[in-house]
Amino acid sequence: MKKKIAILGASGYTGAELIRLIATHPGFEIAALTGERKAGQSMASVFPFLRHMALPDLVRIDEVDFSVIDLAFCALPHATSQAVISTLPRDLRIIDLSADFRLRDPAAYEKWYGKPHAAPEIQKEAVYGLTEFYRDEIRAARLVAGTGCNAATGQYALRPLIEAGVVDLDDIILDLKCGVSGAGRALKENLLHAELSEGTHAYAVGSTHRHLGEFDQEFSLVAGRPVHIQFTPHLVPMNRGILASCWLKGDARQFHAVLSERYCAESFLEVLPFGTTPSTHDVRGSNYVHIGVVGDRQPGRAMVAVVLDNLTKGSSGQALQNANLMMGFDEAEGLMAPPLFP
Amino acid sequence: MKKKIAILGASGYTGAELIRLIATHPGFEIAALTGERKAGQSMASVFPFLRHMALPDLVRIDEVDFSVIDLAFCALPHATSQAVISTLPRDLRIIDLSADFRLRDPAAYEKWYGKPHAAPEIQKEAVYGLTEFYRDEIRAARLVAGTGCNAATGQYALRPLIEAGVVDLDDIILDLKCGVSGAGRALKENLLHAELSEGTHAYAVGSTHRHLGEFDQEFSLVAGRPVHIQFTPHLVPMNRGILASCWLKGDARQFHAVLSERYCAESFLEVLPFGTTPSTHDVRGSNYVHIGVVGDRQPGRAMVAVVLDNLTKGSSGQALQNANLMMGFDEAEGLMAPPLFP
Amino acid sequence: MKKKIAILGASGYTGAELIRLIATHPGFEIAALTGERKAGQSMASVFPFLRHMALPDLVRIDEVDFSVIDLAFCALPHATSQAVISTLPRDLRIIDLSADFRLRDPAAYEKWYGKPHAAPEIQKEAVYGLTEFYRDEIRAARLVAGTGCNAATGQYALRPLIEAGVVDLDDIILDLKCGVSGAGRALKENLLHAELSEGTHAYAVGSTHRHLGEFDQEFSLVAGRPVHIQFTPHLVPMNRGILASCWLKGDARQFHAVLSERYCAESFLEVLPFGTTPSTHDVRGSNYVHIGVVGDRQPGRAMVAVVLDNLTKGSSGQALQNANLMMGFDEAEGLMAPPLFP
Amino acid sequence: MKKKIAILGASGYTGAELIRLIATHPGFEIAALTGERKAGQSMASVFPFLRHMALPDLVRIDEVDFSVIDLAFCALPHATSQAVISTLPRDLRIIDLSADFRLRDPAAYEKWYGKPHAAPEIQKEAVYGLTEFYRDEIRAARLVAGTGCNAATGQYALRPLIEAGVVDLDDIILDLKCGVSGAGRALKENLLHAELSEGTHAYAVGSTHRHLGEFDQEFSLVAGRPVHIQFTPHLVPMNRGILASCWLKGDARQFHAVLSERYCAESFLEVLPFGTTPSTHDVRGSNYVHIGVVGDRQPGRAMVAVVLDNLTKGSSGQALQNANLMMGFDEAEGLMAPPLFP
Repeated sequence: MKKKIAILGASGYTGAELIRLIATHPGFEIAALTGERKAGQSMASVFPFLRHMALPDLVRIDEVDFSVIDLAFCALPHATSQAVISTLPRDLRIIDLSADFRLRDPAAYEKWYGKPHAAPEIQKEAVYGLTEFYRDEIRAARLVAGTGCNAATGQYALRPLIEAGVVDLDDIILDLKCGVSGAGRALKENLLHAELSEGTHAYAVGSTHRHLGEFDQEFSLVAGRPVHIQFTPHLVPMNRGILASCWLKGDARQFHAVLSERYCAESFLEVLPFGTTPSTHDVRGSNYVHIGVVGDRQPGRAMVAVVLDNLTKGSSGQALQNANLMMGFDEAEGLMAPPLFP
Repeated sequence: MKKKIAILGASGYTGAELIRLIATHPGFEIAALTGERKAGQSMASVFPFLRHMALPDLVRIDEVDFSVIDLAFCALPHATSQAVISTLPRDLRIIDLSADFRLRDPAAYEKWYGKPHAAPEIQKEAVYGLTEFYRDEIRAARLVAGTGCNAATGQYALRPLIEAGVVDLDDIILDLKCGVSGAGRALKENLLHAELSEGTHAYAVGSTHRHLGEFDQEFSLVAGRPVHIQFTPHLVPMNRGILASCWLKGDARQFHAVLSERYCAESFLEVLPFGTTPSTHDVRGSNYVHIGVVGDRQPGRAMVAVVLDNLTKGSSGQALQNANLMMGFDEAEGLMAPPLFP
Repeated sequence: MKKKIAILGASGYTGAELIRLIATHPGFEIAALTGERKAGQSMASVFPFLRHMALPDLVRIDEVDFSVIDLAFCALPHATSQAVISTLPRDLRIIDLSADFRLRDPAAYEKWYGKPHAAPEIQKEAVYGLTEFYRDEIRAARLVAGTGCNAATGQYALRPLIEAGVVDLDDIILDLKCGVSGAGRALKENLLHAELSEGTHAYAVGSTHRHLGEFDQEFSLVAGRPVHIQFTPHLVPMNRGILASCWLKGDARQFHAVLSERYCAESFLEVLPFGTTPSTHDVRGSNYVHIGVVGDRQPGRAMVAVVLDNLTKGSSGQALQNANLMMGFDEAEGLMAPPLFP
Repeated sequence: MKKKIAILGASGYTGAELIRLIATHPGFEIAALTGERKAGQSMASVFPFLRHMALPDLVRIDEVDFSVIDLAFCALPHATSQAVISTLPRDLRIIDLSADFRLRDPAAYEKWYGKPHAAPEIQKEAVYGLTEFYRDEIRAARLVAGTGCNAATGQYALRPLIEAGVVDLDDIILDLKCGVSGAGRALKENLLHAELSEGTHAYAVGSTHRHLGEFDQEFSLVAGRPVHIQFTPHLVPMNRGILASCWLKGDARQFHAVLSERYCAESFLEVLPFGTTPSTHDVRGSNYVHIGVVGDRQPGRAMVAVVLDNLTKGSSGQALQNANLMMGFDEAEGLMAPPLFP
């Protein structure tokens, strides 16, 4: 029998991406979709590209009968998520795509998000959703906190290197190039086509981006000591994709060996031949991650480049991968479709 | 047991799109891929976005053992296709994606393509590949001639209207807006990003586009009298998608009724509510066709707008749909994935 | 001595474009810039691309001393414009870029804009701003009503043909392809990069676009009888530019002769050699208009294609051209810079 | 009397950009334009956006009478340039936009460009064209070697910091985001719209980009010791613009002070308020350079971000600025037009 799922916050891009992916999954049935402001509307009116699917109309969260739901995806805005999840049945299994349960330390949450956490007790249950590094915990979790899309990209490059002790921990620089869908469907002037296309700029400069909270938490945990990387994202006129250029100190060949070894059994992570680098074009719309390692002309320096699709592997694809683990499906179910090119 | 297929000319966009689609099809196995100039290379080197698939390397056509092939897709350039197909086993089932076998009349071929047809005998076997209108013939065909992508788009709007006798046959105007992948992977100055992005222009003006040969053939056949539409395509800075704006004389409500009735049982064609029009965004990467009908302020005039993805429903998706028919699979197998948005 | 100008509503795209153009004009001095919601801000903060210019900060309209202003450009939203202009000194010369004073007949205004005109007395003073056709009236006008950008594009193709009596008045179809800046800097979901890029669709379908009010008014005037064209715009993923494909009945060679003759003395209008068509790429950021005429394979049918930059010749460039006339400058002053390509 | 100029290699983007800029310059007259393969063609046919200008047709270089030329711009491909310049009159003043005369050391040239320099004697005359740092030498030069566009961008950030001794010379990382016009009008698969739009990737990885030759030469000269930075460019789907993110060690406030002081008298360089960063959107089509300095959360680390338009300030605008110096015009003549936005 199919597992019944609900998607809370189905009127944004990550909600729509979940639906797109689940459409090809044989084991899940979409039983409820919510959208507070658009309750009563059909998904076809909110996202015409989904008109071919037989989907329930949007309802308010308080209209959902959670007793029949096996798993809820929570694709709500930050802060809203913790408020809503507090009200859900305590035995409901949940995958949260917001930032609300990613940081284990409430003080860190308050530092990066500017106000106290509203549900610290629930936070204690949360498992960090970076599948390849928390697989067993995710399988057993009640609540999985999906990672930030930038945070996932950076960690795929760096976690194995930090764990192996091969990279200089005090000199890690992440220069990210990000597609615009990561900012969601919000009406902001800088997201207009006329403002965004045909140019690029940095944002959240000076290592102020909130995903640094995740980097600090995870890298310090892995290293067994505080690690504070430098990280600045740049907005690029493309809809999907993140390219992380990681500027590192250490032996590039060793980096390549460590990453190749670490990911050789993973379905979605591929380390390219040494000296070659990936393109976001080659993972668009897919759950794949491509990683390249390049040595510099100066020995002891390297660039590791990672690409993924922020809406898929960086968010909704990761969520589905985790849902597969939680519900006992093959981890890659519904996620093996090739990228879309061109 | 899986059906074994070969793709001749796998290094272009339609070849790659076939592979992308077949990746999710349970009944086909890709047994051979050819590329004369790139023979010996892996598909991962030609199209890195396909690196996750276990695919045979590119070979030359003369290296393929066609005795084990159940069906060959021929994604070769125009003119090359007829030469190659002439040399293939006469009992091999073939779907040709080029223009070489679309026109039944050799004189029409010579008129539109500028030289005599090289394989008029084989032409006689060819069935025109517009699935929804040649389903039975395609099922039984040895050789299917895939339609032009523009030709498919226009026919989805016009064939039912012509057949029903509800449209003025002497005043049909097709104004197409076309994405750039329709021009293929050829190195042409006007296809460069710097030349093409951020602007638009008409091409093949004055009803000189070769797909008019298909329109003339099919519309005249359906109408039982000569029909010569006006048709001009415009190049739009998008990679995938065709939007056909058809300017017509007749009763818009009647147009809507005829189209709705004609397509109500079709898996991939959807007629939108009267007065609404479709967007190419909503079919990108999918096999779906959206059709909208709008009345003008002046009675007796209407616009019918059709969108599809030129690489999918306009070419490789159509080919796979036809292959399903020829091999006895469900017609929609491998083609039901939702579009990619955003 | 330089003429002092004010720009009311300088925080939108047409206001900014006026400033960009005036920057290279030797005879105008920008004395006041207004923006109600952004009053007190510098232009550099509202439009960082203007940071190099010494410009007055934005103020509220009621803070402007109009006694020292020689000419005011009014780049306010529709409806706001008529309310504001009613309050300005009655001897102030004004060029209005909104739709508020384009339609001479108050009933037509109410029909197309959905409410009664608030300043019908002032409307009587307004001269329609299509420079090449109202040059003398503009020179003497107190109030010039700049045309709609789509309206200008279509008229450049059609006015001379209608005037010469060479085109079938009952069968004129305008299929426009429009860049996104025509929609202004408004925060609308469909103008987001993620929604708009990589696709196209029609809007204001069924001849409901408000610029039809201008077409009806002007074409009927020129023809001496009612003329009601069909017109649908399509949104194309480009920031600047309009391409009008006009589908017409008549003698294409004659069309070409009439247009060539009519525009041969104009600085900004160029008729391309017969059989060739223009590209929006070639007029981007400039005041130029390119016009192409193509005959169809069927005698008596033609396509006339016109391109211009909606923000320049379609709006702010037209306004500056008219300002030159009103202030006694060379009509082309400040407008002769070449387009930007690529 | 106007100075007569020739542009050798006028059929590429830098040649066209020179013409666009010179169109608004009162002191220069374009006397000859060359293009070997397109000799005999009009510029309007090669670049339709220039059709409004009265320009000489393209000729072969050997058809040019250099005795009447005051200054030649050489916009030829690398390697071709040194061969052609060797044949020109030895007293002709020349601005070369290629890479051929940028490196003073013939060994460095051979290292980065893979073959011996063909005109080492002429190289000795060449002055490096970074205007703000070689102003006096350029004024007097016979031959100016325009800088690489990436090389210019990086130097605007780093030269003053290196000169002032405030930056750690052993840990300079340049992560560049580059628009596609920098690659020229060449027919390459990766420059096609379908391949390039909607994605990003690194190229010339591992500090192998040829512009490193310029960085090494200039930075080592300024520092008085060898300086070898790390530098990787990334191709971004935009036509114009370079954004250099410079990851540096030192005091960010001091960096800001040094850069502000160094550039306060410059017409085209603007240092933004501390903590803010620039966007390529704001300099498109202009000769301006915007520089931002940001401190990191970790003291002693900073990011300096620089933007310019690769075709203007990075190439043809720089060339015109140098030509102004060489011919005794105001340095900013023809270069003060605002950027184009949106």
